Amino acid sequence: MHQVDFINGKTRIFGIIGDPIEQVRSPEMVTWEFHQRQHNAVLIPIHIAQNDFEEVVPDIMRMRNLDGLIFTIPFKVKAIGLAQTLGAQASLVGAINAIKRQSNGEWCGEIFDGLGCVEAFKRRGIGIKDRRIQLIGLGGAGSAICVAVAQERPSLMRLFDLNEHSADQMLKLVKQISPQTVVEVGAPRCDDIDVLMNASPVGMLTDARLPLAVDALNKDLVVFDAIVTPENTPLLKLAQHCGCEVVRGREMMLGQIYKLVDYFLAP
Amino acid sequence: MHQVDFINGKTRIFGIIGDPIEQVRSPEMVTWEFHQRQHNAVLIPIHIAQNDFEEVVPDIMRMRNLDGLIFTIPFKVKAIGLAQTLGAQASLVGAINAIKRQSNGEWCGEIFDGLGCVEAFKRRGIGIKDRRIQLIGLGGAGSAICVAVAQERPSLMRLFDLNEHSADQMLKLVKQISPQTVVEVGAPRCDDIDVLMNASPVGMLTDARLPLAVDALNKDLVVFDAIVTPENTPLLKLAQHCGCEVVRGREMMLGQIYKLVDYFLAP
Repeated sequence: MHQVDFINGKTRIFGIIGDPIEQVRSPEMVTWEFHQRQHNAVLIPIHIAQNDFEEVVPDIMRMRNLDGLIFTIPFKVKAIGLAQTLGAQASLVGAINAIKRQSNGEWCGEIFDGLGCVEAFKRRGIGIKDRRIQLIGLGGAGSAICVAVAQERPSLMRLFDLNEHSADQMLKLVKQISPQTVVEVGAPRCDDIDVLMNASPVGMLTDARLPLAVDALNKDLVVFDAIVTPENTPLLKLAQHCGCEVVRGREMMLGQIYKLVDYFLAP
Repeated sequence: MHQVDFINGKTRIFGIIGDPIEQVRSPEMVTWEFHQRQHNAVLIPIHIAQNDFEEVVPDIMRMRNLDGLIFTIPFKVKAIGLAQTLGAQASLVGAINAIKRQSNGEWCGEIFDGLGCVEAFKRRGIGIKDRRIQLIGLGGAGSAICVAVAQERPSLMRLFDLNEHSADQMLKLVKQISPQTVVEVGAPRCDDIDVLMNASPVGMLTDARLPLAVDALNKDLVVFDAIVTPENTPLLKLAQHCGCEVVRGREMMLGQIYKLVDYFLAP
């Protein structure tokens, strides 16, 4: 009998929705993680044209054997409208990047950028609790990272974004999440902190800039960059040159996948 | 890097739509055939509730990376409404069991039951041209088989169905497709034919009946049964007992898969 062993009539379906779609990495990575956990499921790429989102996605969600969706560019903002309830992170951040069908039939939205970042630190054995953090960039990923880091109760968080309103909003949120954390908004610096986190797009692709004005970094500093491409951003190159421990965007992406699959498969 | 090798962002999606869906075999078999032909595609099970078909399926067809769909119970009749054009077999039979997106963006419907049956005979090296055929059952699969067999230009076709109107209609169609074939409608018999074909449900699952009243079969008769479960129907058991060559429903199913993948991948 000629047949593959990874798909059959009982296979549960998950998808990632984007436009374009060919560049996404979740199908091969999330499906691998399903298989590691012996769950008969695949995550497929779903290409929806930007203008079709509102009409098409609610009907795709009526596939009875579809259990969850991830949203990527350009649908990260629109996606929240599909969720009937929000998970703990999504409620705080006000955004989602995935939804799953709950046992009561309702779709629950959650966001994993921040959880993935914290997971990456945990898997490397690097603590965040009681440490001093500089976070640069409070956009989609940055605000999720800000919330997840605050939940780890660092001693200090200094927040920076070009959009001052975003920074002020996140400051209030951090105070609410972790009252014992000293939180401030201001120009980024790293001479008085333990962990430097970049969640801004500065340094992405061929951008040769650093996200803050420094010539050197203290070797005791831990440096994280949320950017996936290139793997070694200008910031991470400088950090490695200075002897700092670095945590890469790719590790955050893997952390997201673990947390996403935890979420998708939770009862 | 932990990832599977059978799905990624570039994977083209095909599906089989049914209600229920868990029993279907196309996902593992068609996906195998895609891989044999080095085509980066998977065929997924798609469970659509019976009442959701009209609203949901047209939107699933707006997935830009979805290239084709197969329809199974209970959607075989409704499916034709989704096709904008019909393939050669479907035009004659008036039914489809698959659609594909053509290069001009239109969806073309085609039916493969009959083509699969003829393919099974070809792969076994058994000719139909100039042979005398008794065909029992002219429902969904039976009418498709009738058309595909007529196209092979047998010398005689005797048709039987409990629904006399169906039999009369197929008689006219066979005359049109193959004017040189002698075609008649009447009670099934097998003392004057070369190939006996059952496309009726008699003998399916635990049904112990034969589709025609016989005690023995001529050993030179070729006996085909479209039923997949059980693999050896009461008719095929009798045929083997009498020394006849048999062609099984499973072989027709494999034939369908080859022809379907030919169709899905044709430019």
